[in-house]
Amino acid sequence: MADIRTQGLQKPVDVAEYLFTRLHQIGIRSLHGLPGDFNLVALDYVPKVGIKWVGSVNELNAAYAADGYARAKGIGALVTTFGVGELSAMNGVAGAFSEHVPVVHIVGCPSTISQRNGMLLHHTLGNGDFHVFANMASQICCDVAKLTKPSEIADQIDHALRECWVRSRPVYLMLPTDMVTKKIEGARLDSPIDLSEPPNDPDREDYVVDVVLKYLHQAKNPIVLVDACAIRHRVLDEVHALIDKTKLPVYVAPMGKGAVDETHPCYGGVYAGSGSNADVAARVEASDLVLSIGALKSDFNTSGFSYRTSQMNTIDFHSTHCTVRYSEYPGVTMRGVLRKVTERVEVGKLSVQGSPTVRNEVKENYEGSETITQAWFWPRVGEFLKEGDVVVTETGTSNFGIWETRFPPKVNGITQIFWGSIGWSVGAAQGAALGVRDMGQDRRTVLFVGDGSFQLTVQEVSTMIRHGLKMTIFLIYNEGFTIERWIHGMDEAYNDIARWKYTEVPKAFGATDKQVKTWVIKTKVELEKLLKDEKFQNGEGLQLVELWMPKDDAPRALKVTAQISAKNNARLE
Amino acid sequence: MADIRTQGLQKPVDVAEYLFTRLHQIGIRSLHGLPGDFNLVALDYVPKVGIKWVGSVNELNAAYAADGYARAKGIGALVTTFGVGELSAMNGVAGAFSEHVPVVHIVGCPSTISQRNGMLLHHTLGNGDFHVFANMASQICCDVAKLTKPSEIADQIDHALRECWVRSRPVYLMLPTDMVTKKIEGARLDSPIDLSEPPNDPDREDYVVDVVLKYLHQAKNPIVLVDACAIRHRVLDEVHALIDKTKLPVYVAPMGKGAVDETHPCYGGVYAGSGSNADVAARVEASDLVLSIGALKSDFNTSGFSYRTSQMNTIDFHSTHCTVRYSEYPGVTMRGVLRKVTERVEVGKLSVQGSPTVRNEVKENYEGSETITQAWFWPRVGEFLKEGDVVVTETGTSNFGIWETRFPPKVNGITQIFWGSIGWSVGAAQGAALGVRDMGQDRRTVLFVGDGSFQLTVQEVSTMIRHGLKMTIFLIYNEGFTIERWIHGMDEAYNDIARWKYTEVPKAFGATDKQVKTWVIKTKVELEKLLKDEKFQNGEGLQLVELWMPKDDAPRALKVTAQISAKNNARLE
Repeated sequence: MADIRTQGLQKPVDVAEYLFTRLHQIGIRSLHGLPGDFNLVALDYVPKVGIKWVGSVNELNAAYAADGYARAKGIGALVTTFGVGELSAMNGVAGAFSEHVPVVHIVGCPSTISQRNGMLLHHTLGNGDFHVFANMASQICCDVAKLTKPSEIADQIDHALRECWVRSRPVYLMLPTDMVTKKIEGARLDSPIDLSEPPNDPDREDYVVDVVLKYLHQAKNPIVLVDACAIRHRVLDEVHALIDKTKLPVYVAPMGKGAVDETHPCYGGVYAGSGSNADVAARVEASDLVLSIGALKSDFNTSGFSYRTSQMNTIDFHSTHCTVRYSEYPGVTMRGVLRKVTERVEVGKLSVQGSPTVRNEVKENYEGSETITQAWFWPRVGEFLKEGDVVVTETGTSNFGIWETRFPPKVNGITQIFWGSIGWSVGAAQGAALGVRDMGQDRRTVLFVGDGSFQLTVQEVSTMIRHGLKMTIFLIYNEGFTIERWIHGMDEAYNDIARWKYTEVPKAFGATDKQVKTWVIKTKVELEKLLKDEKFQNGEGLQLVELWMPKDDAPRALKVTAQISAKNNARLE
Repeated sequence: MADIRTQGLQKPVDVAEYLFTRLHQIGIRSLHGLPGDFNLVALDYVPKVGIKWVGSVNELNAAYAADGYARAKGIGALVTTFGVGELSAMNGVAGAFSEHVPVVHIVGCPSTISQRNGMLLHHTLGNGDFHVFANMASQICCDVAKLTKPSEIADQIDHALRECWVRSRPVYLMLPTDMVTKKIEGARLDSPIDLSEPPNDPDREDYVVDVVLKYLHQAKNPIVLVDACAIRHRVLDEVHALIDKTKLPVYVAPMGKGAVDETHPCYGGVYAGSGSNADVAARVEASDLVLSIGALKSDFNTSGFSYRTSQMNTIDFHSTHCTVRYSEYPGVTMRGVLRKVTERVEVGKLSVQGSPTVRNEVKENYEGSETITQAWFWPRVGEFLKEGDVVVTETGTSNFGIWETRFPPKVNGITQIFWGSIGWSVGAAQGAALGVRDMGQDRRTVLFVGDGSFQLTVQEVSTMIRHGLKMTIFLIYNEGFTIERWIHGMDEAYNDIARWKYTEVPKAFGATDKQVKTWVIKTKVELEKLLKDEKFQNGEGLQLVELWMPKDDAPRALKVTAQISAKNNARLE
């Protein structure tokens, strides 16, 4: 007799197997998260489809790591349990939303029967409301799918994963315990989910391209400015094609750092309004046409809204629309427009100014002491970095300092300037290193993180050890929250932190001498020696460098931005 | 010339000073949280009003700690920053909501001007919505106050703090940077906030009392059963007055453990349906009248809804209503009713059965090996504990095991059975120890936590060290999530954790030899020796005991509950 559960199905497959197979198909090879009784049965399916279970140390770190994994490999995922687990992950998922990172959040939840009966289960608020957490998640996810009806689940999953990828933002999947083993149509799995962006309407696109070309051919001093959404919405090939053909000078916003090959002759440096170095600011602000690609003009990305460019001289390319001066073209997205602009631009008609030379200005920033200063350190990092490195910088001195570092080619610069959640980088670095390994690449992941931030998420070091990741951590030992000090309370106790013995942390987390090497570096000479050490450069296993820098020292750009922030906070009517 | 900002105010005071003074008045002496640029200026006021800034290591831990502080001292508070900080704390605050714990969550947020202008600030979702996080918080807080108009702020603060206390649930205060220094009426501070519960309507109360007494006087075998909300809504004096006068047998639910003096002759043990020991179950279920005080009948508090008591034989006393059999009396709250019942009960008319004797059954659970078993350990703990100890037990083997421990008098038993967020206990223990010290009491805080849970929130150990708290930690080293193993996946990798060197953790977090003592204990003999050591008993500083117990061993009650949970999760229609 036919099993009623599989009736009408060509290739019956369990819901959990369907879900995880789809994750595998879109590129996920490692799944972050923690076990909880509402997700345990689902987790049985993870190894079956060829996905590795990371076994994260807590949910916030898992979310940060899934974010980092996505920034390295394209898309990331985590599994948590209802209520307690998912809420712990919320800040990490919100960060992925804010920063346009595709992360799939799967939440194991009570069975549909328990939900219908409003049972007083653990991990609930006691009010019989099983939707409250999904409702919260809907504020920070671009799709929420409650998988409660087998006949709809495959569609829901495919739709959510497509939204996640195309909109480059988190989605939330609520998987009740009694749905895990329900049978759905597995034949669908033979066709991958369509992840392609919908093409622009050709007539509208052509119209925009013509307008762009008109202004571009007329401009005396056109430049390209690349920002976060160019990375997140995956148009870097288009960007490079454009500059290769046109030779236009190209700058990046802080959140766009790493988007452009910084050894490219057209590369001119980081533009962030008054936080930029003077030459860059002068050149960008003198431009009569800024081709702005994927801009995200937040306070910390613009040194406190200090751009001195005019919208009359700007063409904005976005993932949802383009804007030429004040004319908006909704639904005309940047990929198609950029391709056609590159194809159709008449190079002979262009007026191309030169780009400034970008170097790592180590000598220029050597002030004669043995102290490791922020000004000297970041250009020096540029000489240490290698082609293909993954460079993760934490909110604070690191993500401002990195402006002064010229990256070698193919560096993936990962930072969270907009959401700016301290501690994020430790999880993100773990996820990024895993993502790189899952791509079969032998690249270094180099993390720069301050001691204050490191403490929030320290246990992610355990995950790095557990999975034997290739990871070099520069832990900036400057006794607390330096970014906050520069905003307010330079000497206030609330910006202090407990004094840890950072180099002892990996061993407490179970690392053997073989798995970890640690250094305490207090002077430039010591640092030079280390950076030149070949073994250190190879970066096998976990390398932790406790790097002493003065408590009140900060990169130039941080000082400028902090001052503007403090003023903004204090402004009264 | 009169300052317009203070016009009409008798004693002008800054908003932040008003707020923190109110916190001090209602009993908060230590404030958990982290600095962030939207709360920095407010934090300047904390020491001014005599409150200590804890300087938490991350926001989730801060929320857990504020919860633990509240459970020890009455009410707790934390300060976070907009978006990133508050969302990290969300699971901890939700736990306080679910478990009826009064926690004040203050969130420093962008200025009202930035909000009105919809500025693209860091820590936002980029959509100009500054209310999204407050909206989320409204799901897990009993009051949300956005402090945006100076003329209303004092009222808002007083109202929120009163709600927090009276309803014993978290409240959320959103403090924009530009409101911190606004002047409001300080003369109000001369009168403390009225925290008294509204009294019942006397006629309605008398009516309920008469009904209760009628049944009580008729009953052949009445008992008292005390649960969580009796603790949270502060009627333990009333409970003790009732049993002292009536000599009725009194039992506690797991979440009520510690509510009743367990050396009291009337005390009969823990009742949780089929998870109870047989004698307790038999006696409770034979009762023809259960006076149920502050019940919270969740799955884990009732061994999977396995009570065998009938509503026809039950009178429920709650903080919002009473229920006699099936008759509900909304608005008639338990405190007044309990007082009058005690006052008016005619002892001569009562039929009082004896209570079982509750002992720590150490010998009975000695099975002849050197292995430290769950069955043997928990009664043995009962002999180690001292009057006045604060005993914190983590979700998992600990909060089930503790059922088998008879507490000495005045023990404060702290556990989170309903919300059940793993890792909570490490933060909660820190907060509780601080709360006890802030009350000027020299009591021990003893934490029981499994290795899996400990890893989630390990950095809270740093806070314990930083503040020199008196803390004894029994870290149950059983290689992973044993509670999950008993629900599903006994040998699955997803229930494994990384192998840490737990005893090295405190020193990595900066503890000196003077500040911390550690032990690795693998046998009963070693444990006996340690527990009898006088210095260890005194519990000065931080004491960390890594206690080896078998991976698949669990307390009896956990096994029963896990089985029911697994069934419930798997149940299909």
